[in-house]
Amino acid sequence: MSAFFGDIAPIQYEGPDSDNPLAFRHYNPDEVVMGKRMEDHLRFAVCYWHNFAWEGGDPFGGRTFDRPWFGGTMEDARLKADVAFDMFRILGAPYYCFHDVDMRPEGDSFAQSTRNLEAMVDLFAQKQAETGRKLLWGTANMFSDRRWMSGAATNPDPHVFAYAAATVKTCMDATLKLGGENYVLWGGREGYETLLNTDLSQELDHMGRFLNMVVEYKHKIGFEGMILIEPKPQEPSKHQYDYDVATVYGFLKRYGLEDEVRVNIEQGHAILAGHSFEHEIALANALGIFGSIDMNRNDYQSGWDTDQFPNNVPEVALAYYEILRGGGFTTGGTNFDAKLRRQSLDPEDLLIAHIGGMDVCARGLKAAAAMLEDGKLEDARRARYAGWDGEQGLLDTSLDAIFERVVSEGIDPQPRSGRQEALENIVNRYV
Amino acid sequence: MSAFFGDIAPIQYEGPDSDNPLAFRHYNPDEVVMGKRMEDHLRFAVCYWHNFAWEGGDPFGGRTFDRPWFGGTMEDARLKADVAFDMFRILGAPYYCFHDVDMRPEGDSFAQSTRNLEAMVDLFAQKQAETGRKLLWGTANMFSDRRWMSGAATNPDPHVFAYAAATVKTCMDATLKLGGENYVLWGGREGYETLLNTDLSQELDHMGRFLNMVVEYKHKIGFEGMILIEPKPQEPSKHQYDYDVATVYGFLKRYGLEDEVRVNIEQGHAILAGHSFEHEIALANALGIFGSIDMNRNDYQSGWDTDQFPNNVPEVALAYYEILRGGGFTTGGTNFDAKLRRQSLDPEDLLIAHIGGMDVCARGLKAAAAMLEDGKLEDARRARYAGWDGEQGLLDTSLDAIFERVVSEGIDPQPRSGRQEALENIVNRYV
Amino acid sequence: MSAFFGDIAPIQYEGPDSDNPLAFRHYNPDEVVMGKRMEDHLRFAVCYWHNFAWEGGDPFGGRTFDRPWFGGTMEDARLKADVAFDMFRILGAPYYCFHDVDMRPEGDSFAQSTRNLEAMVDLFAQKQAETGRKLLWGTANMFSDRRWMSGAATNPDPHVFAYAAATVKTCMDATLKLGGENYVLWGGREGYETLLNTDLSQELDHMGRFLNMVVEYKHKIGFEGMILIEPKPQEPSKHQYDYDVATVYGFLKRYGLEDEVRVNIEQGHAILAGHSFEHEIALANALGIFGSIDMNRNDYQSGWDTDQFPNNVPEVALAYYEILRGGGFTTGGTNFDAKLRRQSLDPEDLLIAHIGGMDVCARGLKAAAAMLEDGKLEDARRARYAGWDGEQGLLDTSLDAIFERVVSEGIDPQPRSGRQEALENIVNRYV
Amino acid sequence: MSAFFGDIAPIQYEGPDSDNPLAFRHYNPDEVVMGKRMEDHLRFAVCYWHNFAWEGGDPFGGRTFDRPWFGGTMEDARLKADVAFDMFRILGAPYYCFHDVDMRPEGDSFAQSTRNLEAMVDLFAQKQAETGRKLLWGTANMFSDRRWMSGAATNPDPHVFAYAAATVKTCMDATLKLGGENYVLWGGREGYETLLNTDLSQELDHMGRFLNMVVEYKHKIGFEGMILIEPKPQEPSKHQYDYDVATVYGFLKRYGLEDEVRVNIEQGHAILAGHSFEHEIALANALGIFGSIDMNRNDYQSGWDTDQFPNNVPEVALAYYEILRGGGFTTGGTNFDAKLRRQSLDPEDLLIAHIGGMDVCARGLKAAAAMLEDGKLEDARRARYAGWDGEQGLLDTSLDAIFERVVSEGIDPQPRSGRQEALENIVNRYV
Ligand SMILES: [Co+2]
Ligand SMILES: [Co+2]
Ligand SMILES: [Co+2]
Ligand SMILES: [Co+2]
Ligand SMILES: [Co+2]
Ligand SMILES: [Co+2]
Ligand SMILES: [Co+2]
Ligand SMILES: [Co+2]
Repeated sequence: MSAFFGDIAPIQYEGPDSDNPLAFRHYNPDEVVMGKRMEDHLRFAVCYWHNFAWEGGDPFGGRTFDRPWFGGTMEDARLKADVAFDMFRILGAPYYCFHDVDMRPEGDSFAQSTRNLEAMVDLFAQKQAETGRKLLWGTANMFSDRRWMSGAATNPDPHVFAYAAATVKTCMDATLKLGGENYVLWGGREGYETLLNTDLSQELDHMGRFLNMVVEYKHKIGFEGMILIEPKPQEPSKHQYDYDVATVYGFLKRYGLEDEVRVNIEQGHAILAGHSFEHEIALANALGIFGSIDMNRNDYQSGWDTDQFPNNVPEVALAYYEILRGGGFTTGGTNFDAKLRRQSLDPEDLLIAHIGGMDVCARGLKAAAAMLEDGKLEDARRARYAGWDGEQGLLDTSLDAIFERVVSEGIDPQPRSGRQEALENIVNRYV
Repeated sequence: MSAFFGDIAPIQYEGPDSDNPLAFRHYNPDEVVMGKRMEDHLRFAVCYWHNFAWEGGDPFGGRTFDRPWFGGTMEDARLKADVAFDMFRILGAPYYCFHDVDMRPEGDSFAQSTRNLEAMVDLFAQKQAETGRKLLWGTANMFSDRRWMSGAATNPDPHVFAYAAATVKTCMDATLKLGGENYVLWGGREGYETLLNTDLSQELDHMGRFLNMVVEYKHKIGFEGMILIEPKPQEPSKHQYDYDVATVYGFLKRYGLEDEVRVNIEQGHAILAGHSFEHEIALANALGIFGSIDMNRNDYQSGWDTDQFPNNVPEVALAYYEILRGGGFTTGGTNFDAKLRRQSLDPEDLLIAHIGGMDVCARGLKAAAAMLEDGKLEDARRARYAGWDGEQGLLDTSLDAIFERVVSEGIDPQPRSGRQEALENIVNRYV
Repeated sequence: MSAFFGDIAPIQYEGPDSDNPLAFRHYNPDEVVMGKRMEDHLRFAVCYWHNFAWEGGDPFGGRTFDRPWFGGTMEDARLKADVAFDMFRILGAPYYCFHDVDMRPEGDSFAQSTRNLEAMVDLFAQKQAETGRKLLWGTANMFSDRRWMSGAATNPDPHVFAYAAATVKTCMDATLKLGGENYVLWGGREGYETLLNTDLSQELDHMGRFLNMVVEYKHKIGFEGMILIEPKPQEPSKHQYDYDVATVYGFLKRYGLEDEVRVNIEQGHAILAGHSFEHEIALANALGIFGSIDMNRNDYQSGWDTDQFPNNVPEVALAYYEILRGGGFTTGGTNFDAKLRRQSLDPEDLLIAHIGGMDVCARGLKAAAAMLEDGKLEDARRARYAGWDGEQGLLDTSLDAIFERVVSEGIDPQPRSGRQEALENIVNRYV
Repeated sequence: MSAFFGDIAPIQYEGPDSDNPLAFRHYNPDEVVMGKRMEDHLRFAVCYWHNFAWEGGDPFGGRTFDRPWFGGTMEDARLKADVAFDMFRILGAPYYCFHDVDMRPEGDSFAQSTRNLEAMVDLFAQKQAETGRKLLWGTANMFSDRRWMSGAATNPDPHVFAYAAATVKTCMDATLKLGGENYVLWGGREGYETLLNTDLSQELDHMGRFLNMVVEYKHKIGFEGMILIEPKPQEPSKHQYDYDVATVYGFLKRYGLEDEVRVNIEQGHAILAGHSFEHEIALANALGIFGSIDMNRNDYQSGWDTDQFPNNVPEVALAYYEILRGGGFTTGGTNFDAKLRRQSLDPEDLLIAHIGGMDVCARGLKAAAAMLEDGKLEDARRARYAGWDGEQGLLDTSLDAIFERVVSEGIDPQPRSGRQEALENIVNRYV
């Protein structure tokens, strides 16, 4: 156990009346919601990068955090791992997520970086065994180092494509070894800064082929987790190819991958793309590609990715409502790809931010479940479309046949209230 | 000839030094650009709706224009047609576009509305013959009347679906009769105001089936034009299903229509979706679904669709550059789906706005052609990807094979300048 | 009593467990919060325009609502008033707000319009007396008619300026007669579409002079209410002069009005200007110009003014928190300048939307009061600035004197945690 | 002369037909425009920070540039200065701008940092003398170091306020010594991340007092340059107090500084605040506080500050049009606060980006001058307001007097066309 968090004991559920900042007021892992333990519904994961690797910088300022593990040695990496697993344990989060570069120091060659990774994977495996923590997903960071500045799988330089392929191979191996339940690809540099120097067609084809290789390798090594793409419209690039759920769907269809790959949807990325979070979830469910979520919000009024912890229960409830309507998570879960604000300097802030986020999710989940069990919303939805029950035939005919019917029957449809405010009031009974 | 425009003669090309507000300074229809007449490149179309049916209202104010044809009679409709074809002739625009509701008065039944439409189609056919004007595309307005408030093909009420099918049938008939080169669907109400009352899955399936019926009917009647979808992300709806080019592509793939349907891309809609106009065009070309354009810009800083005439030559040049790179228009053209500002009250304003827009497009086209003929941009693009010439093998192998190669060869890619500013400077030689 | 709402009885408070859609679950007028009745805190007002004059149109579609009072006669106006006061009574909202054009038919001359207004004012006065309803504020609609298309007080045409002055005079008279507690100016056309035809300097000076005339007239007639400006950044205009609270403050200072005029802040307008609602309220309090609020939200992801009923309790709570921190309303109140969604066709929807909004506000108010009474947030705020207690002298000296001290004392400030997440968690105990 | 740029000779004007990427095609310093040399109109400045101190990082990736002067020693700082003045000379830009932290290494105490600054100022003075380059403005970086994370003048910790005061003192001294023509304050951390921990009122008062101390110190040391505030709405902070020109104006009025302080307007910041660049310039001129510009554009579709070199002539022309209408620069100039794209790695890219920017500005200036000399736009503007010539009396009377006149004269104003498109077409004759 590291000294970083002092003698803070594992966070306990104390109920809504507690004013202990280091207690859960709503997240009660064993509480049963719709027949399942809350922990098994939410499947919380803590991310390694923002919590342990990020230094608090922004485009106008450098490091604000002062962590004993900052530095580039294997010893630093091990101390970081000690603190991280300590935090997972204190929070009681069952899962975590990582990038390769979060857990291992960069070596002076690809081979050395790989050896560093393997050594750390061994350590992580041991820590998982000791603490009972599990890996929700692994991923490769192919955007921070300058070698990726013009893309990874979509790079104009084939050597970068190769380096990316080799990197993903090592990260998939690591994920397999750690029993990861998913493998995620976020293509922060798979896009462009300017169309003027970009061959859109080639870049899309290379990205399609790359993803097929990922799927082929998954099967080769017997990885049974799900491959997930995380959509984001832009930032760091001016335009990213995995813009949103609909775009990723078209991409998967184009390259024959719609049965092999799903999406990891982040609230902040949904918003940057002009969508609500619940829209992206509902659409992924409708298209059959829903996988997992990154439950970190964006400030609606900041045009960049603020990656804040969730704090608005009504919004979170609508997201879980769509997740529950779709049957809940299978391999996916609720990852906090969330940054502390860079002024939140203290170790305690790390815990408090997660506690708040987990409580907000727990409230959202319970509200969503109650809305579903109540049934009023779903009854209203069904009633609105009930006219189709006897009219499926309209879908099996032709424009001119329908035309004849409209004219002969004098069809003159009358609008009916959409009752949006009434439905919103129903939601407000639960959130 | 109507009296509306007084004795204004057809607009002539007078060259860049003219300061006659009623002359073209750049649009010279017979001038040859890259081996083709400018008129045949640009294929200008004038829209019927904003020019002749829109009254100048906005969400906070009513009619500002005062046109002698406002009113709901067939006589009004005929006067409107007189003025419209007069304007087409004065401008020398070879094409126009229409919705059903622009050209005919609403009847008191579907059958009567259809008869009104048919009568006007006969009149339009006669006017086309007299003036040599042609129809670029026809379309149905299935968003203004209150019957469409909850969608057309995606309406919860099957009677509205039927009404929509019958309506499109009549509009396709009209388009065929008028020799239209395309038929467009813009789904301003195909979307939702709130997810709470929406069955996303059913609505998408109905829209997919509807579009298949459109394609089936096209073949049945021998319409040889192209079916086009016009993407727009939102407004009037909170979310529209035809969000952007990438979304429409996924939709077409889902419903097996990618070889039958293309896109009509509007600059203003591209911007509302977070894309540049040239991005949407380049993407449509890459995906094989580029059709036509609506060359009306949005104010980047107004969050609604301002539908302004184009006035920024550098932007327009980049759009035509992508069009020319893709081989130019086939059935498509340059439609001005553009509104006068509502304070631009005078008949002359209608002409001046189009003259300005046509000149801006002519300059953009000429600049685009010069950039292509110069070749520096394309040379730079090819050079950037030249490394792939001997490395296609990377695409035919596997992650682990590539991994072996990266390790054994010690591949360590070095970034090369993307030269964005140098390329932008090259563009600025031409615009 | 009109027949419009059938036999719906006045809405009663039934408590949080009620599932009656026509009952309050949180708004309990007589419940005491921080020593004051809830009704006296919230001071709810219902707007006349969106509820009774708006027909459900948007930029892409016309009327959806079907109200028996639509039409232009005095009889229509009286029926509208009957239904309106009926609704005020059913809702138990103590206040309402109006524009001149909402309540009276347009005449064929200014004099006739004024007579119509006066007749309706008499009727309203009588209805107020009968029902106990009061006027929170009156205002003039100087944006809908085409005469205002280029501005009212800022119009290039002095006759429009004159017409505006005369109009405001009649509306201030009406407001005085009806015992209004405020008079509001919203300048939807006081701005520009293009700088190219605009004399910014003259327009600002005319607007400054106009507002001074308003204040002079207020004193002349003994109107004791407050004059309020409602900021909005744009829409309908591309740019509006009353952009946001900070801009209005600078305008008031420039024209010597900062002690005479305050602001009516709308949530939707705050958002369009890039601010949170609570920011605008807090800033107005800091600058001493806080007046009243329009409690209608905008969709964060629609770039136009959606004017929706509030439905997010955490957001509303933060707004009331700033209002309570500033001492609460004096002449101001909580106006719903909110539109039904245009698909919400039924009379009941009008009631349900207001009930939902009033309940959300009541929850927000109670949460805000509890946070203030709890004191943890204010304690934390004070503690963060406590270092200044002994350092006020720094404000009374000079850069060079401070420089000497920094050097001689070796001042080297150490950052302290801003604790944002901890504070957000505290808020989440109450919302 | 440093080796960094190899043997590149000073950039020459070669005229519009040149295709030499290292020549000016439009910027011809000695060419006379409206009676003044182009160099004296434009007053170009190159910024030290983005060109020489920025390493190419973004929120998702680290250093991409590889410069021989990166490092923290005085030797590095001197090499950086050599290259910088070399670049100023090659470009022929008459001015540059700096922050303290760009030019000197951070010391281990404030005193040491000050000594480092002083040593570098001596070197810069010598280089200015050798090369004839001048200082447009100096400024202090009070946002990058972690000590500033919660603000400088607005920090909750008085020691940070003191450190800020001492820092500005040293930077004003440096600016005076280097003959700077302005001193700029940009308050990137003067704002907040969350209202919950912020005392808005105190922070504004402290900022007001701080700025008064700056003005007092200016007079004390005999600095005759102008004090400028650079507005920006947000980023890095969620909200910054110097939001836009209108906000800064209100702030200056509140603290009695409107005659002492002006604004430095950046195109990118204007856009982030929802304004056009020309709006901010025109408004600053109308309010009498126009100072200088940062001529670096934002991508309209990226929600963060992209700080790109200008490349759109029509937009730049409208900005210079407003500058020329206001009489041109006095102490201000055209600073490129512009970043290379982080993929533009080569030394040549630094030159090419500036050459392109300078050419675009030269074209914009010439177009603006031609529009002014042509006079058509100003004639149209005057004509639009001409009705006021005989109606100034309306401004000296009262609402009720005007009311009488409207009624008695039956005033019924008729709208006139705003002619926006016609005016836009006139602009397009010149750009
Ligand atoms: Co993110
Ligand atoms: Co994420
Ligand atoms: Co449009
Ligand atoms: Co269009
Ligand atoms: Co509003
Ligand atoms: Co309002
Ligand atoms: Co900037
Ligand atoms: Co700047």
